[in-house]
Amino acid sequence: MAGKIDARLAELGIEIPDAPAPAANYVPYVVTGNLVIVSGQVPMEAGKVSVTGVVGDGSVTEEQAIGEAQKCAINLLAQLKTATGGNLDRVKRVVKLGGFVASTPDFTGQPKIINGASDMMVEVFGDAGRHARFAVGASALPLGCVVEIEGMFEID
Amino acid sequence: MAGKIDARLAELGIEIPDAPAPAANYVPYVVTGNLVIVSGQVPMEAGKVSVTGVVGDGSVTEEQAIGEAQKCAINLLAQLKTATGGNLDRVKRVVKLGGFVASTPDFTGQPKIINGASDMMVEVFGDAGRHARFAVGASALPLGCVVEIEGMFEID
Amino acid sequence: MAGKIDARLAELGIEIPDAPAPAANYVPYVVTGNLVIVSGQVPMEAGKVSVTGVVGDGSVTEEQAIGEAQKCAINLLAQLKTATGGNLDRVKRVVKLGGFVASTPDFTGQPKIINGASDMMVEVFGDAGRHARFAVGASALPLGCVVEIEGMFEID
Repeated sequence: MAGKIDARLAELGIEIPDAPAPAANYVPYVVTGNLVIVSGQVPMEAGKVSVTGVVGDGSVTEEQAIGEAQKCAINLLAQLKTATGGNLDRVKRVVKLGGFVASTPDFTGQPKIINGASDMMVEVFGDAGRHARFAVGASALPLGCVVEIEGMFEID
Repeated sequence: MAGKIDARLAELGIEIPDAPAPAANYVPYVVTGNLVIVSGQVPMEAGKVSVTGVVGDGSVTEEQAIGEAQKCAINLLAQLKTATGGNLDRVKRVVKLGGFVASTPDFTGQPKIINGASDMMVEVFGDAGRHARFAVGASALPLGCVVEIEGMFEID
Repeated sequence: MAGKIDARLAELGIEIPDAPAPAANYVPYVVTGNLVIVSGQVPMEAGKVSVTGVVGDGSVTEEQAIGEAQKCAINLLAQLKTATGGNLDRVKRVVKLGGFVASTPDFTGQPKIINGASDMMVEVFGDAGRHARFAVGASALPLGCVVEIEGMFEID
């Protein structure tokens, strides 16, 4: 089924991968009422994390970190696609993104990094993609990832 | 319209500023069902962050950090005021605050800092201001802010 | 009242303590609609935190940290038991755990630590215990705790 959002994704050249499976006793998302709560997604691509490090210590650039946030966004979309039975047109609103950026104490540009994901949500969903969010520095993230983003979405 | 909560704010000498606008593709709050999800607020005052630093490295005192948490609370109230169409009497419950304190590894007094915001919620809303929360240390926060606090509120 | 989940807890040898009281102007949980939002729980046992430190600096082992996550899970269950009026059978779903692990910049095994709590939820609630989650590194946590975990639960 190719819906309106699928068409928009194609237009943007964004390919939604199969949703990454979690490695433990948790699940990628839970639907409660009309909310979808999506687990923190890391920038895994084809099962691999290609960029690791902490922003601010020279191991990763801001541009790279923004790219990693975009990969998190794509994985959030992949989970959401599964949660909606493949029909992203059921998404009524991106409610919230919670963004963690592996940061040294003196890197304070977390918003710019998480914009990589925020911008993609608006590109894909338009006004329905505008969301509440937080963007904070984490001392470290799983697998050495640069960014981890959790999501809350409203579906019909 | 001056409601009961507006009167209480005046009594407390708390002036609610215009709600700070986010600088990117996200929004200050999203209403879903009867929940208002408010983006992480930083201690911006009149468009400026006056205190920056990390608690524990000598750059900022605990007292200052508590003051910064209070500013976050005021900005949460400002967003909430907009979300309720100017009528804070519609707030049924402060559901949750998520508090991040820029902290060195050996500063472990995050609860005391976030109390600056928690106490204000109870001063303003009474028992309806009692909320669930977390208080954790972040390695760094946007713009070098000392505190960032997100909020979840129930409205009628 | 000994319900199905109480029996399961007894079977697992998990004793649910009295719910720890928060030390400030916040509450251990808030019920909104059919969601229970539980405050970030630390590994307090009989009013005491016995293990403190940061994973990665040698002050605490991974095994110890997993044990601390289990204590957080038990405290989440304690709060949830109070929230459900003592009847854990009313829990329809563990919706989300938000896990913070006090971590040095080079410790990247947060998921393994938080599994201590995730696994317990599934042991106790079965499939209803499978949840969305995030697991991230915090620079420091309250009282020097190694782990802090917040929870969201659906009840009937």
